[in-house]
Amino acid sequence: MRNILLELEYDGTAYCGWQRQAGQPSIQQTLEETIERVTGEKTVLHGSGRTDTGVHAVRQIANFHTARKLPEWQIQRALNAYLPPDISVRRCIAVPMKFNARFDAKAKRYVYAVRATRGAPPLGRMYFHWTPYQLDLARMRAGAKHFLGTHDFDAFADSRRKTRSTRRTIKSFHILARRDRFLFVVESDGFLMYQVRSMVGTLIEVGRGKMAPERIRAILEAKDRRKAGPTAPAHGLFLLRVKYKKAGL
Amino acid sequence: MRNILLELEYDGTAYCGWQRQAGQPSIQQTLEETIERVTGEKTVLHGSGRTDTGVHAVRQIANFHTARKLPEWQIQRALNAYLPPDISVRRCIAVPMKFNARFDAKAKRYVYAVRATRGAPPLGRMYFHWTPYQLDLARMRAGAKHFLGTHDFDAFADSRRKTRSTRRTIKSFHILARRDRFLFVVESDGFLMYQVRSMVGTLIEVGRGKMAPERIRAILEAKDRRKAGPTAPAHGLFLLRVKYKKAGL
Repeated sequence: MRNILLELEYDGTAYCGWQRQAGQPSIQQTLEETIERVTGEKTVLHGSGRTDTGVHAVRQIANFHTARKLPEWQIQRALNAYLPPDISVRRCIAVPMKFNARFDAKAKRYVYAVRATRGAPPLGRMYFHWTPYQLDLARMRAGAKHFLGTHDFDAFADSRRKTRSTRRTIKSFHILARRDRFLFVVESDGFLMYQVRSMVGTLIEVGRGKMAPERIRAILEAKDRRKAGPTAPAHGLFLLRVKYKKAGL
Repeated sequence: MRNILLELEYDGTAYCGWQRQAGQPSIQQTLEETIERVTGEKTVLHGSGRTDTGVHAVRQIANFHTARKLPEWQIQRALNAYLPPDISVRRCIAVPMKFNARFDAKAKRYVYAVRATRGAPPLGRMYFHWTPYQLDLARMRAGAKHFLGTHDFDAFADSRRKTRSTRRTIKSFHILARRDRFLFVVESDGFLMYQVRSMVGTLIEVGRGKMAPERIRAILEAKDRRKAGPTAPAHGLFLLRVKYKKAGL
């Protein structure tokens, strides 16, 4: 048996997200079926985490086990030959048997793309969230600082699905801007459902002047979802990187 | 009567191109129908030129006449409210009655986007042409130099549709590169059908080492389409700018 790690890029537009859901096309199901086609074995593919409906990935990490002796480059080539054009295997390597893409993940980095223009731009519209408001970069950066460090992110999580702990540590939060384009790049030991999108949605409220930057600290402390800004839409969000303890993974 | 100029951005993915064609959605028809909805008048929209099936535009220019007295900003807002998300009016201004977007155009600039990566990248795949070959930038730049100036571009035109003259003047041809991304930016007093795409297709042959840069001069002189490289696909091509004599248009 070998444990195979896949580094994956995907366009989430046509999928219900990473996780299998009855009657809807998911990234996980598409990949598992393609792996089965290549290896001839029933497979469970472990992703580093779920991405929501419509969310994209630049480098998602996943792993599966196989008894087949195909070299890794051949697995990669066969997978890419059968996969639809919106999913691609960027890397395929054998890793230690005990590696698990989900449980061994130490940190994740997401990027959220926004364009602030008067009219909604047609080109690339499936890859950014459009807002008609002018955004003040300095205000948003001041607001983002309050997210840094360890906090209870209850106010920025999906209120329907509660996980045991809503404490997370934000390691970095950078906002890059060039003309009307804004990139929100955030790294954490882990994210709650909708957390990035509700943090960005709240920062947009700050950037357009509807909310003071300091309010973010108050919202974190109040732990009240209704005080935060709206959840920014899925199609602006990209899973950029998953970090593991062992270098090279 | 007023003469209204529109600056248009569109994602050509879903269209048979600029020009009306029976039974297929075109940019021109979509816009004319939307203008009629806003003005209540039957309209002919004059584009600066056709863009082919699947070709995009960052700033296409077109004009139409109207007897309605709506202010321009209101026309723009109404058009954008009714247009599908893949077409947008970036600017709407009144221009002299004798202005014609097609006949007054002095030059056009196109950009063609290529990514050279081992596997086909899913993200943004409708906005660039993917090639699995490594491309040599210096070779392609050396090849592109031969296109500069006035030549008979017969060898780089669609062989089915002949226009009276196939002489055109290439004013500039720049190739920008960043990692695996290449942008071919070319400006001319006008382009023949498929000209940009066959010039880029030929430069890719040069870049991957299949053709010497100097061959381009020989192909121009031979005026033989079969000697040039393949026509690069439509979805990597963007009409970037149309230039007019009068500044500000």
